[in-house]
Amino acid sequence: MRTAVLVEPTEFELEDRPRPSPGPDDVLVAVRDVGICGSDVHYYEHGRIGDYVVEDPLVLGHESAGEVVEVGENVTDHEPGDRVALEPGVPCRRCAHCKRGDYHLCESVRFMATPPHDGAFTEYVSWPADFAYTLPESVSTAEGALCEPLSVGIHACRRGSVGTGDTVLITGAGPIGLMVLEAARAAGATDVILTDVVEEKLEFAEKRGADLTVDVTETDLDAAVAEYTDGVGADVVVEASGAEPSIKSTIDVVRRGGTVVLVGLASEAEVPIDVLELIDNEVDVHGSFRYKNTYDAAVDLLADGEVDVEGIIDFESELEDINDAFRRAMEPTVVKGMISLNS
Amino acid sequence: MRTAVLVEPTEFELEDRPRPSPGPDDVLVAVRDVGICGSDVHYYEHGRIGDYVVEDPLVLGHESAGEVVEVGENVTDHEPGDRVALEPGVPCRRCAHCKRGDYHLCESVRFMATPPHDGAFTEYVSWPADFAYTLPESVSTAEGALCEPLSVGIHACRRGSVGTGDTVLITGAGPIGLMVLEAARAAGATDVILTDVVEEKLEFAEKRGADLTVDVTETDLDAAVAEYTDGVGADVVVEASGAEPSIKSTIDVVRRGGTVVLVGLASEAEVPIDVLELIDNEVDVHGSFRYKNTYDAAVDLLADGEVDVEGIIDFESELEDINDAFRRAMEPTVVKGMISLNS
Amino acid sequence: MRTAVLVEPTEFELEDRPRPSPGPDDVLVAVRDVGICGSDVHYYEHGRIGDYVVEDPLVLGHESAGEVVEVGENVTDHEPGDRVALEPGVPCRRCAHCKRGDYHLCESVRFMATPPHDGAFTEYVSWPADFAYTLPESVSTAEGALCEPLSVGIHACRRGSVGTGDTVLITGAGPIGLMVLEAARAAGATDVILTDVVEEKLEFAEKRGADLTVDVTETDLDAAVAEYTDGVGADVVVEASGAEPSIKSTIDVVRRGGTVVLVGLASEAEVPIDVLELIDNEVDVHGSFRYKNTYDAAVDLLADGEVDVEGIIDFESELEDINDAFRRAMEPTVVKGMISLNS
Amino acid sequence: MRTAVLVEPTEFELEDRPRPSPGPDDVLVAVRDVGICGSDVHYYEHGRIGDYVVEDPLVLGHESAGEVVEVGENVTDHEPGDRVALEPGVPCRRCAHCKRGDYHLCESVRFMATPPHDGAFTEYVSWPADFAYTLPESVSTAEGALCEPLSVGIHACRRGSVGTGDTVLITGAGPIGLMVLEAARAAGATDVILTDVVEEKLEFAEKRGADLTVDVTETDLDAAVAEYTDGVGADVVVEASGAEPSIKSTIDVVRRGGTVVLVGLASEAEVPIDVLELIDNEVDVHGSFRYKNTYDAAVDLLADGEVDVEGIIDFESELEDINDAFRRAMEPTVVKGMISLNS
Repeated sequence: MRTAVLVEPTEFELEDRPRPSPGPDDVLVAVRDVGICGSDVHYYEHGRIGDYVVEDPLVLGHESAGEVVEVGENVTDHEPGDRVALEPGVPCRRCAHCKRGDYHLCESVRFMATPPHDGAFTEYVSWPADFAYTLPESVSTAEGALCEPLSVGIHACRRGSVGTGDTVLITGAGPIGLMVLEAARAAGATDVILTDVVEEKLEFAEKRGADLTVDVTETDLDAAVAEYTDGVGADVVVEASGAEPSIKSTIDVVRRGGTVVLVGLASEAEVPIDVLELIDNEVDVHGSFRYKNTYDAAVDLLADGEVDVEGIIDFESELEDINDAFRRAMEPTVVKGMISLNS
Repeated sequence: MRTAVLVEPTEFELEDRPRPSPGPDDVLVAVRDVGICGSDVHYYEHGRIGDYVVEDPLVLGHESAGEVVEVGENVTDHEPGDRVALEPGVPCRRCAHCKRGDYHLCESVRFMATPPHDGAFTEYVSWPADFAYTLPESVSTAEGALCEPLSVGIHACRRGSVGTGDTVLITGAGPIGLMVLEAARAAGATDVILTDVVEEKLEFAEKRGADLTVDVTETDLDAAVAEYTDGVGADVVVEASGAEPSIKSTIDVVRRGGTVVLVGLASEAEVPIDVLELIDNEVDVHGSFRYKNTYDAAVDLLADGEVDVEGIIDFESELEDINDAFRRAMEPTVVKGMISLNS
Repeated sequence: MRTAVLVEPTEFELEDRPRPSPGPDDVLVAVRDVGICGSDVHYYEHGRIGDYVVEDPLVLGHESAGEVVEVGENVTDHEPGDRVALEPGVPCRRCAHCKRGDYHLCESVRFMATPPHDGAFTEYVSWPADFAYTLPESVSTAEGALCEPLSVGIHACRRGSVGTGDTVLITGAGPIGLMVLEAARAAGATDVILTDVVEEKLEFAEKRGADLTVDVTETDLDAAVAEYTDGVGADVVVEASGAEPSIKSTIDVVRRGGTVVLVGLASEAEVPIDVLELIDNEVDVHGSFRYKNTYDAAVDLLADGEVDVEGIIDFESELEDINDAFRRAMEPTVVKGMISLNS
Repeated sequence: MRTAVLVEPTEFELEDRPRPSPGPDDVLVAVRDVGICGSDVHYYEHGRIGDYVVEDPLVLGHESAGEVVEVGENVTDHEPGDRVALEPGVPCRRCAHCKRGDYHLCESVRFMATPPHDGAFTEYVSWPADFAYTLPESVSTAEGALCEPLSVGIHACRRGSVGTGDTVLITGAGPIGLMVLEAARAAGATDVILTDVVEEKLEFAEKRGADLTVDVTETDLDAAVAEYTDGVGADVVVEASGAEPSIKSTIDVVRRGGTVVLVGLASEAEVPIDVLELIDNEVDVHGSFRYKNTYDAAVDLLADGEVDVEGIIDFESELEDINDAFRRAMEPTVVKGMISLNS
């Protein structure tokens, strides 16, 4: 099977690899669509993300969906022909985190495209059946692949307990910020504010339903939020930019007793936080890492037409053109590129 | 001011009463719209609801909105001309329930139209300013009045922790069931099933967005839910009919580990519940009583156009015609009647 | 290895069975202590519990602890010589319940001594290493075995959110009620009331720290609770008797906004519940089924000396005397009998 | 009545002030015991804490208890002779925070000894009856006064969801750290670690039941916690020192998915926090501000003898000697000084 392998930074090579056989609890999936994530691009450019270093050739891609072509002997809830989205992290199922239901925190998780685990820019993937989620007819495999970033948004909103009538401020209007917007609306937020430093992104966010957008290079965020909320502040702030000034600002714009969710990976590890204000206003700051138990909800939201993920796709490329696709994905105005296979 | 007073069962008399003066923390409101609730009808017919007995002439009506015409000396967040929805229960603010935030459980609550407290079928009401919620331009006072039943729905969904991707079964497609439908959708439910015994009500529910409706006089509910949910059951069941068979059925159709919310007032106090199944499936059964901290959310949902309450209004009458209006409200196909004033 | 097998109601036979070999993720445990549970006695007397029928010869016993004598090839956190308590239910690790952290609700759980799964009245058990919990020196294997009923108590208290300063009423002073007492104290309950119909049990409960005991054959429970709580009611009521009058009474004695936990298996499936009061007082009724993620806490509490489980042991017998031991366990004043092995 | 008034930094003057009359919902309390808090000492030394500036003569003291000598006309649950602890913050009862049950976050709270509100270093205080908590005979008024710092500990533990079997790390062994220790034990923590930089404080903490103490001037905290917890980290970390290095360290020593509670007032507003680790380990960081709904629990814990607050009292002085008492309270080894009145 054809497989795109990152052999060194900025260079994919197409290899021919043997097609895997599914284990007894696995499904073999013919991959159809794979999204290009910011982390893929980061590995492509730099060969590492923090402590995760690409030492051997690696297959990237963890936003994927396809068609089941074979099932292991124990698998009863999937059959060939099923179209499925693949949740890319498979935990050990045995540690304290797994038993608590926090399987996303499992230290032994096998996560696609995180060294040394291969991802989905390949024709076939064998994957545990219980991490493959059947797509109804109304949901495309491209949407199925984007259950992954949508899951990041759903999980962040759950970490912030976003609920009916809430005012949610999202810092950063990139793909994660936009998915948080979708998830926040679905969870009942009635007022959603997005910030960014790129005017085009804010315009796009506004078209997708943001009630207020703030270009933080031009407008004082504190003042804008205070005006919009009658001085109260946002019930929930989801930081989706990773930018230090945004992270710092979260404590200022959240309401007393409100919640800040940090999901955007910071470029600097240490960020000065106003802990006096955090204590005085009894703020909750919640880290949000990947997701757990979100795929069923993501598929349901897509089937219902409650959220729009396809609208963020800028282009689709063939696997053969993956080097070009990644270069294009690095352009600042591109939100999401996709790779199509087996079509 | 003209006031409709229930002088004996099935007879309102219009009286002229002195217009109240607002206390220092109150607003005086010219009432515009008042909904006729099932409990109003029950007092009208029977002169009592359980232990609450109408002993003296009583003003009914607790779903109300109007226009502020005067404010008390301490009131800073309202001014004459504001259009407001009135939350009808004002607690003592001092007991353990109030301090815990469960002010709706306050034993000393003063609740409109619950003997001996007068309600809103009158031209003017003086009410604590903090229980009057300003309506934005896009929200009518008829909608404002219906923040009350919508609040019942929002609170029931909160009591059931309805969230993104949930399957919610609602037993009873009357006004409460329909408001739970709206609130469940707003809270992220992607699959909502409604049951009733009246075909017209189910058709109406379907038009309003139910994914499945079940006429329990014709269809086996267990089987229908099992089929719809692949044998899993509903994540949350909200009982909104008060009918004994419905209450009993909740334990059968909720999923293992799921939640049942009881909101419909039972006609019988004691209902046989399958406690073995409740334990074996570790079900949560939550009573849901009125609401707390819902009016802001209700107004926001209405302002956003996320929920539709006006669509349940069958007719509007003048205060002068209140006896006729109540007789009409007793017809089985009527969902909601309204009384208009001061227009 | 010697194994006590229930061949028909009221008759154990000692068989010689082959000693199992541990799988790659298992430990082989030389069983030391096994408690006799009410469910064991029920199977012994009647050959069934509800839908669970003993059709083939069955090994009973699910409250067990022993010594690791061999470990599978993947096992790194246990070694021969470790003394361990065995959590008796091993889930599928793959279903929605397992992923949510509700592994105790897994429909495919393999639970010791629940037909057709054998239990621990045998010399050796091979068990998944992650369901074997190491006991520190200060905790005996008899205490380790009683982590099981203590876990029932811990889980019930978690289901009731028992916390600092709470008043907890426990109906039923048998082994489960007594373990709930220990767990409630550990969780911060400052006032614990126990009820029963047997005077000796109440005296025993009082010696073990109950603040108030109520013999419900002699005293009106409502009145006693109202007096003790200044008319407020108990914050949490844990029903541990399974008796219909007790189940019914829970709604009367819990405070407004409080929580009822049902853990005692009812003798009748259907119990009339006052749903009007449940709604009016916005009570939470939570089924409590077995336990999850409790064994680490149970071991820690025992190591700390915070709870006393050995004090409920009435007698210890050899495996050879198991028929006698079960007859003795059926006496009404016996709280807990134990079987000792390999000593 | 004699009243100690802070007329300028480091100088109290005893004044004769008129004894107040209780309002209709108030009790008049003859003050018996008042604790000297670190914040009192800070106002005494510096005349301000952050934005709170002592501009007019101020009565300090907010940890107080005494005897009811008169009750207002609406007061039914207190009578002269009752011994009561006074909760020092009285909220507006009308804002969104108050209605949500977060009355401690009320922006209009009237808090004793926070400018411009007078405190309790005086013979008589008139106070809302619902913020006066009756002490049973077994609880002294000195203990009653210390319900205040104990409440800080209870609230911090609730903010951290400390529960049965938890490992809790507390940074700082001053009065707050010691009260958190008591509250954590009461809430079920089985392993409590305390840190400090003063050896005597750690010895005192060890005597009071800490399982491990760490002098962070000598020992690497990460390594000590890793060893104690088998590399897992603490379930909950409560930061009670306000020292920047301690605040920074919390993220390192909490377990993946664990909770950090910040309660110690930082000397610097901005502290660099490792947000990458916060996200990667999905840590919750919760500010903890004062307390709410804790006094009943505090009194119950004291009545039960479950917690020890008197053991932290180093000395008691008369009101006349308040200047001396404050100078003594500033010594580094003093944990708690008290002022006695009306005896």
